[in-house]
Amino acid sequence: MTTTVTTAPAATEAPTAPASLSALARALSAPKGFGDASLRRRRPGDIELLGGIPDDTALPVEALLASAERVLRGARSGPAAFQYSQSAGLDDLRGWIAAREGVDPARVIVTNGGFHGLSLAVLTLVERGDAVAVDNPIFPLFLRALELSDGRPVPVRVGPDGLDVDDLERQLRAGARPVAVYTVPDFHNPSQGTLPTDQRVRLVDLAERYGFVVLADNPYRELRFRGADEDSTILSTSDRVVHVNTFSKTLGPGLRLGWVVASEELASAFVTLRNRQDSHTSTLEQQIVVDLLTHDPAWFDTTLARARDLYRERADVLVDALHERLPGIVETRRPDGGFFLWPRLTDASIDPVRLHAESAERGATYQQGEFFASGGRREFADHLRLAYGNHTTDTLLAFVDRLGAAVDAVRASHPA
Amino acid sequence: MTTTVTTAPAATEAPTAPASLSALARALSAPKGFGDASLRRRRPGDIELLGGIPDDTALPVEALLASAERVLRGARSGPAAFQYSQSAGLDDLRGWIAAREGVDPARVIVTNGGFHGLSLAVLTLVERGDAVAVDNPIFPLFLRALELSDGRPVPVRVGPDGLDVDDLERQLRAGARPVAVYTVPDFHNPSQGTLPTDQRVRLVDLAERYGFVVLADNPYRELRFRGADEDSTILSTSDRVVHVNTFSKTLGPGLRLGWVVASEELASAFVTLRNRQDSHTSTLEQQIVVDLLTHDPAWFDTTLARARDLYRERADVLVDALHERLPGIVETRRPDGGFFLWPRLTDASIDPVRLHAESAERGATYQQGEFFASGGRREFADHLRLAYGNHTTDTLLAFVDRLGAAVDAVRASHPA
Repeated sequence: MTTTVTTAPAATEAPTAPASLSALARALSAPKGFGDASLRRRRPGDIELLGGIPDDTALPVEALLASAERVLRGARSGPAAFQYSQSAGLDDLRGWIAAREGVDPARVIVTNGGFHGLSLAVLTLVERGDAVAVDNPIFPLFLRALELSDGRPVPVRVGPDGLDVDDLERQLRAGARPVAVYTVPDFHNPSQGTLPTDQRVRLVDLAERYGFVVLADNPYRELRFRGADEDSTILSTSDRVVHVNTFSKTLGPGLRLGWVVASEELASAFVTLRNRQDSHTSTLEQQIVVDLLTHDPAWFDTTLARARDLYRERADVLVDALHERLPGIVETRRPDGGFFLWPRLTDASIDPVRLHAESAERGATYQQGEFFASGGRREFADHLRLAYGNHTTDTLLAFVDRLGAAVDAVRASHPA
Repeated sequence: MTTTVTTAPAATEAPTAPASLSALARALSAPKGFGDASLRRRRPGDIELLGGIPDDTALPVEALLASAERVLRGARSGPAAFQYSQSAGLDDLRGWIAAREGVDPARVIVTNGGFHGLSLAVLTLVERGDAVAVDNPIFPLFLRALELSDGRPVPVRVGPDGLDVDDLERQLRAGARPVAVYTVPDFHNPSQGTLPTDQRVRLVDLAERYGFVVLADNPYRELRFRGADEDSTILSTSDRVVHVNTFSKTLGPGLRLGWVVASEELASAFVTLRNRQDSHTSTLEQQIVVDLLTHDPAWFDTTLARARDLYRERADVLVDALHERLPGIVETRRPDGGFFLWPRLTDASIDPVRLHAESAERGATYQQGEFFASGGRREFADHLRLAYGNHTTDTLLAFVDRLGAAVDAVRASHPA
């Protein structure tokens, strides 16, 4: 018997390489360090103080269900909740947000969460190679958003009161010409500080003078649990600011619902861009949330007040426990709001990388300070970012016990 | 009394121009024609056969509420529905989709609707200036998505059975080297046709041979109401295809919930990009929809069967009424599925622009065929796109009456 040799059909003769990715897709960095949960081994019983996550008990499960019932059974909505709606967001929701911000609804654009607002702003304002002044330390995921436009981060010092506007002005006078300045004004992530009102005004003055746009990323502003608010009016009313906000820390990040306040010109550019992405945020979800916010006008502030009490207690328990268990070893500052504690190791004999490993070994994980450096150097290695929002006080005490044991282990292996 | 002259503070001396937009933002075209509802005057009583919109009565209002109750009161979910989840989508939802597509869940990425999938594919695959072969006529919003990467559309003829693969192959042999080919394989928008199974296979063969990716935009595939399905297996299993799908036409476009099926390499690139946009689709909405799809495994197909009956009746009533009211004036083809009728004016004495105006004057609006040309020329002016999905048969009959009166008016003013 002979084997018949056939010619392979043309289509399979010369199979080409797999689909080639665009330069943009190739340039997006592979996940590493911060934000990549897959790199961690998780074990049952681990205590993870990793993310700016609201507590399950602070989330409006029953209230949202009641809103869903009103929306789906309501005369005004029903099937309308399933149909297309405007890219800028539902008028009712934009109106509620605008009233709370004290601005014209035309300045408000609904987004899929705060990060989406940052992403829209980067694409709309930043060209390849443009300088963008950024917090140092920084919320590191902003650097990933910046990759969308291949922007070049220029670190600006962040002090105990947020962005160091002196440092920014020094760099501007020295010739830096950023197209945008990124900062977290309230309860800075990771370093806790809040930018004082006069520095907000000064920052916007600099924006006017040097022609940049301020990207004010403000997810935690509603979570002040101590002291008085700094005035955010300038951030929502200046045409030189994109004020990025979200319901993620108040109603829940899984909703992916946020908003930006910006000039009408920028708001219009965001809508134009959005029309080339996903058209609009879920009509159903917007209708449910606007019902939640308006059905009982006192509901949101009552809910926030309860959440603030919860987070204040947790912050205080964590700070007190660190002082008690690790005196002279970590330096802390009592937070005024938000989800983060940014203690510094004052004992130089402790290797922070070793400490992180020993602590993880004991089931207590946190973010290492060095992940928050925007300058490319290994800064902030002596800091820990502890996210306390979604842990009970008992769990926080157990975390500090484990961290303390890790400190003991590191010190025992390197006797002074 | 003398007036004191003070020096204006430096910050206000030289206010700069408003924020300058990125080249990308400037390049995005202003809305015109198709898809820009704001350009139309709407009057009460107008009948608008404008969009591919499912009927209110086909949307699962009560079933979705029941799912919301189960999710929010459920042991497995509750507050988890408000928390962050994976960018690729919930495992349960990806699993349901993968089972229905007959593919590995790793090939499935959840998106905010079908358009979002197209947008991710364009950003991931197309470089500035790259040729992208596209349907002609085309779903025009794809050309807007293409602006995100400044891709160059290369029109390919669409015939009665969808994309004319002969025309594509002719252009490829003549040297065209598109990085992607965009087409709607089932119930083409706007021209109704469905690509036969053998042409799907041939298209993917060409993709292998010439190294392009097929963007198969398939929002209507579940809405066949006559005849037998063409086989979509190759579209979901080939690594050379991004199969773009959505629940928009079945569960409602306002949910902004869809998916793509792609190679694991492309799926991973989409997730990386998504991590720089809005992180993930609403956890709450995904949980509710996966409950809706799985609580009663027969529910989705039963619901679809009812919807298909509804749309078939509407399509038939519209076609019959056009034949009866406008014999010899429009040529129609009975649709096998989807939401669109693409009649052609056979009476050359009728000016289509004039007809559209006279018809709108009488409260009957539709999309003009010329908006669907991808070649830059004024093709398809003799076509009308009539979207019948969201109108009762009575409304469709009234529409045809008004259109008929408009035809009479145009003919009366230009006697033969």
